[in-house]
Amino acid sequence: MANPADLSAIEAGSSIAEGRLTSEELVAACLERIEQRESDVGAWIHLDPDAAIAEARRRDQQPKRGPLHGVPVAVKDIVDTADMPTGCGSPIYEGRRPYADAACVALLRAAGMVVLGKTVTTEFAMRTPGKTTNPHNRKHTPGGSSSGSAAAVAAGMAPLAIGTQTAGSVIRPAAYCGIVGYKPTYGRIPRAGVKLISESLDTVGVMARSVADAAMFAAVLEGTPYKPPAPLEQPPVFGLCRSPAWPEIEPASETGLNVAADRARRAGAEVIEVTLPSIFDEAGNAHAVMMAYEVSRMLAYERENHWDKLSTPLKRTINDGRVYSREQYDEARNVQAQCRAAIWEVLDDVDVLLTPSAPGDAPEGLAWTGNPVFNRIWTMVGVPCVTVPGISSERGLPVGIQVVGAVGRAARTLACAAWLHDALRAA
Amino acid sequence: MANPADLSAIEAGSSIAEGRLTSEELVAACLERIEQRESDVGAWIHLDPDAAIAEARRRDQQPKRGPLHGVPVAVKDIVDTADMPTGCGSPIYEGRRPYADAACVALLRAAGMVVLGKTVTTEFAMRTPGKTTNPHNRKHTPGGSSSGSAAAVAAGMAPLAIGTQTAGSVIRPAAYCGIVGYKPTYGRIPRAGVKLISESLDTVGVMARSVADAAMFAAVLEGTPYKPPAPLEQPPVFGLCRSPAWPEIEPASETGLNVAADRARRAGAEVIEVTLPSIFDEAGNAHAVMMAYEVSRMLAYERENHWDKLSTPLKRTINDGRVYSREQYDEARNVQAQCRAAIWEVLDDVDVLLTPSAPGDAPEGLAWTGNPVFNRIWTMVGVPCVTVPGISSERGLPVGIQVVGAVGRAARTLACAAWLHDALRAA
Repeated sequence: MANPADLSAIEAGSSIAEGRLTSEELVAACLERIEQRESDVGAWIHLDPDAAIAEARRRDQQPKRGPLHGVPVAVKDIVDTADMPTGCGSPIYEGRRPYADAACVALLRAAGMVVLGKTVTTEFAMRTPGKTTNPHNRKHTPGGSSSGSAAAVAAGMAPLAIGTQTAGSVIRPAAYCGIVGYKPTYGRIPRAGVKLISESLDTVGVMARSVADAAMFAAVLEGTPYKPPAPLEQPPVFGLCRSPAWPEIEPASETGLNVAADRARRAGAEVIEVTLPSIFDEAGNAHAVMMAYEVSRMLAYERENHWDKLSTPLKRTINDGRVYSREQYDEARNVQAQCRAAIWEVLDDVDVLLTPSAPGDAPEGLAWTGNPVFNRIWTMVGVPCVTVPGISSERGLPVGIQVVGAVGRAARTLACAAWLHDALRAA
Repeated sequence: MANPADLSAIEAGSSIAEGRLTSEELVAACLERIEQRESDVGAWIHLDPDAAIAEARRRDQQPKRGPLHGVPVAVKDIVDTADMPTGCGSPIYEGRRPYADAACVALLRAAGMVVLGKTVTTEFAMRTPGKTTNPHNRKHTPGGSSSGSAAAVAAGMAPLAIGTQTAGSVIRPAAYCGIVGYKPTYGRIPRAGVKLISESLDTVGVMARSVADAAMFAAVLEGTPYKPPAPLEQPPVFGLCRSPAWPEIEPASETGLNVAADRARRAGAEVIEVTLPSIFDEAGNAHAVMMAYEVSRMLAYERENHWDKLSTPLKRTINDGRVYSREQYDEARNVQAQCRAAIWEVLDDVDVLLTPSAPGDAPEGLAWTGNPVFNRIWTMVGVPCVTVPGISSERGLPVGIQVVGAVGRAARTLACAAWLHDALRAA
């Protein structure tokens, strides 16, 4: 039998359900992997091995609550846990013990899953990075802000993780770390108990090593019964989308997107070029206005009481947000509404869009988690996005390919992403 | 000089700015009013008079931070305060001391205002009422869920209060208590640190005794500089709207709406009958589906860990919410999106709508806070709503008239509401 730490979440869950594996054995295997790799990767900000084993033992003694019963999860440290500190990547909240679990944590526990520990986030899920490195090359960033969640899943420390995205904080780190990242439709995974910075943008998402794992875990967090997506009756129609962010493209993602399109065509898909409606040219700027405006208000307590404990880049974002007028903010919201309506012009003709997950592979250095420019327009529009791995850059780092679907078509989006993941791996 | 407790917030703020009144005197006057009336009204769940006076003294020693510097505010007890317990109207959270102020509390403190204390909310801002009575007749409900906030402002205990609305929890209690209630556009006052139950619906709002007070206070909570609304160049065009909830209308509100229309016409306004687009016939049901679905997930922690401490009606809502399918929820969200687009069909032709704030005046008895049926469609659509007092029912209780505007036209909506308030009082 393979090392349980390398099983997919679905395989692990069915092994536990069928009595071939215990939650304790699985959690112990994950802890052993952490022991081996954590000094390099630095994915965790809070980990209590004894408590994790004890929770796994309790799961082993309970009736099974669902197909992922007993499976451990890494939780980004802006998500409240009643039994573990939640520090939000900020000295202001270091050691803070929440009163209650976040709703998404309560939902995963209700499904019998185990919270393994808390993973490193950048400061309030924004710019200033934590200690985490890229498991593929420790000189490179893992991406952010869900840095520890992406690195933990990529390093085999946990089969699943919770992340959040306001600009590109699920898709980008997942792409850089070579795993699957799924940012669901805006508003579908409840955010109660998550430290919010931008109500119009913040979206809870998941990381996994397969699309099927991500889909099943997201259903748990949405509190909906999991239905395996209907298999595609025929290969998808992909809309190849060089987004308005294209001037930022680097060779790794440009080549990667072409390779992905080629492999998809060879596997039988139709790939047609699409151009976004012109309102999308304003989307990047509108996202920046919305985010800074909202951050400066959502963090009013921190701004008023702990200014000296905020990083310089965050202070700058807050100050920018206070300069924008209410009229500029309303206009940005108006661009958002127009983009939400206009995207159907391209999504009516294709199943999903195929677009870069990031400008390139993971940049060298740990001071910067990379550019979310290929993510923020989709976050703003609120559509479901999946990044799939399977392509490598010239220097041997993962390159993610982003699949973007329509609101109300999450299941189809996931099915197309799973199809693409297979096509990329088959090459 | 009048009792400072009876001043409007704007009058009190300018008296403090001009040195004719201190924050300490104002807070002391409010505390005296509370002393006189609290045993009847029961508006407060946490009040520490010494601490309130001490905060007022600090304000008196500081440079003025804005036009409401030194003015006290009543805060609904689902809104976090770092220096006062926040119990959410539930035994689960009794005595809980939050780690931080909610963003809106930090913003009002940044403007130099004083948190006077915490006001009674129904259980998690839903059905099960607290101890509060209607200041106009203690045998009648004050409405809910922002019961204590509405009663405190109506009884002259505080010039301003924070409330929240998911169905009708700002507009209805304000109408029943005979004050101004303002539910701003969805998403404009930040919700960080507010106990959320329904992310698509929860809206922070304000209570006051004049529209101008409400407008100025809302600007503080939105973190925007206050600009007095431009005076109307001519009397407004009102669209008289007998909403799809009309079968629930009672004589008090039916007569009240007619009286309001008559007085508006006599004061020079045009009042034309409007009919909502037919998609609004589905709006009430869609609101109910959205709310129950989201409540059952947002309260996942409470449901999984404290089921025995939830009231029977809340348990029923949670169970209802778990029965709705993801498809039913998506369809409700789709109705919401259609209503948001379709409302322009009527709002293009008029300045604002004129519609009941509640089925009638405050029902007798304290076990039920009344029916939000005349509020929930507007909450779902996310448009700005103001209830204005000035009309009484046959039995001498206040009847509110609701002014509903368009997203992006909040200032105009407030100006029309202020105009109507004057017209109703002039009669």
